[in-house]
Amino acid sequence: MNLNPIQLFDPQSFTFTYILNAPGSSDAVIIDPVDVHWERDLLHLQRLNLKLAYVLETHAHADHITSAGKLREMTGARAAVPGGCGISQADVQLKDGDIINFGDGEEITVLHTPGHTVGSVSYVWRGNVFTGDTLLINGCGRTDFQGGSAESLYDSISKLYTRLDEDTRVWPGHDYKGQSVSTIGWEKQHNARLSGRDRDAFVHLMNELHLPKPKMIDVAVPANRNLGIPHGV
Amino acid sequence: MNLNPIQLFDPQSFTFTYILNAPGSSDAVIIDPVDVHWERDLLHLQRLNLKLAYVLETHAHADHITSAGKLREMTGARAAVPGGCGISQADVQLKDGDIINFGDGEEITVLHTPGHTVGSVSYVWRGNVFTGDTLLINGCGRTDFQGGSAESLYDSISKLYTRLDEDTRVWPGHDYKGQSVSTIGWEKQHNARLSGRDRDAFVHLMNELHLPKPKMIDVAVPANRNLGIPHGV
Repeated sequence: MNLNPIQLFDPQSFTFTYILNAPGSSDAVIIDPVDVHWERDLLHLQRLNLKLAYVLETHAHADHITSAGKLREMTGARAAVPGGCGISQADVQLKDGDIINFGDGEEITVLHTPGHTVGSVSYVWRGNVFTGDTLLINGCGRTDFQGGSAESLYDSISKLYTRLDEDTRVWPGHDYKGQSVSTIGWEKQHNARLSGRDRDAFVHLMNELHLPKPKMIDVAVPANRNLGIPHGV
Repeated sequence: MNLNPIQLFDPQSFTFTYILNAPGSSDAVIIDPVDVHWERDLLHLQRLNLKLAYVLETHAHADHITSAGKLREMTGARAAVPGGCGISQADVQLKDGDIINFGDGEEITVLHTPGHTVGSVSYVWRGNVFTGDTLLINGCGRTDFQGGSAESLYDSISKLYTRLDEDTRVWPGHDYKGQSVSTIGWEKQHNARLSGRDRDAFVHLMNELHLPKPKMIDVAVPANRNLGIPHGV
């Protein structure tokens, strides 16, 4: 049965943070928390009487700083991150196919989905996929920094389309238009960046985007590789 | 088992809209949709392959206009509203204790919770309560118009506290501080307006608030009594 996560939003960076809670247990997992919201997020856990087992990151973000280190410090949760992202301060380095266990038999499966960054992963749990900046609603992440590759992104999204049921809910890392959730089936058919384009046409499109450099990248990526903990602390 | 709804947000009026979907069925219900977001909300239903059975209102809002009429027109859903709110265009006038059926045996129970307005209701579904402007996270709705009454609001919130389990999740009609969800247990213990205050002290507090008149009230309430359908159409 599909269980919706709790979806939280950062209006500055348009980032979604997710709280997954294990039915029949107080165990919870948080995905992609944002630095300035660590108190908000702890309050949610407290109000819902949840205990944080893991803080997960989908990648080392370029547009905001994580609160993973802070939440680990405050709750004793373990920080688990994609192995290919250079986040050396984490407790667990994840690779494709790994399973994260929490609660009473809950399993989160790690899918390596490179393309937005070389290390990016997606997390699959109970009919949901948390795609970070790999697959967005009617869009996808950019591919022009941190080992990004339009070829890889095409292959990663194809992997999501192949591996996951059509009714799997897609919970992205961002949305800029007030959308919250989609499905694999809908994206497969309608995604503005991918539908009706073969790999070459997609790569051509992505390589012609010429997006401005993210304002925070030079600060955010090193900070996120340190789980958002200020250096020297 | 608690099933989280899908929570959508209107950043202009800080209003939450909720989509509830029936497990094992494509039937869905939407609570308190906002006029400008009718296309966003239809797109959510479309992407998730959901069919709208009901549009529910918690009360006749003073700060935004509903899209209930528009969604009914676009989907064939029935509009069900609290009987005491003067929303004469609705298909169903609800009263305390009514049960709304959808999907494969899903039941939403109506609790009459007057105080913010004389007709306000809360909806209970699978370990969740949708409180509209009755109980907010660490707060409550104002009580100074549309038959509002601090005495009634105190009694209504006490009724929620008494009738519902402590781990019932509270999904409010608004939040102004980036919070999304709480529980009956947490509110009972910590709510800034109610905890530690008896009925008289609460009434005194509410009657001393002297809040400015909502900017949209003279437009919104008549519009909402018509399900947001422009008069003459």
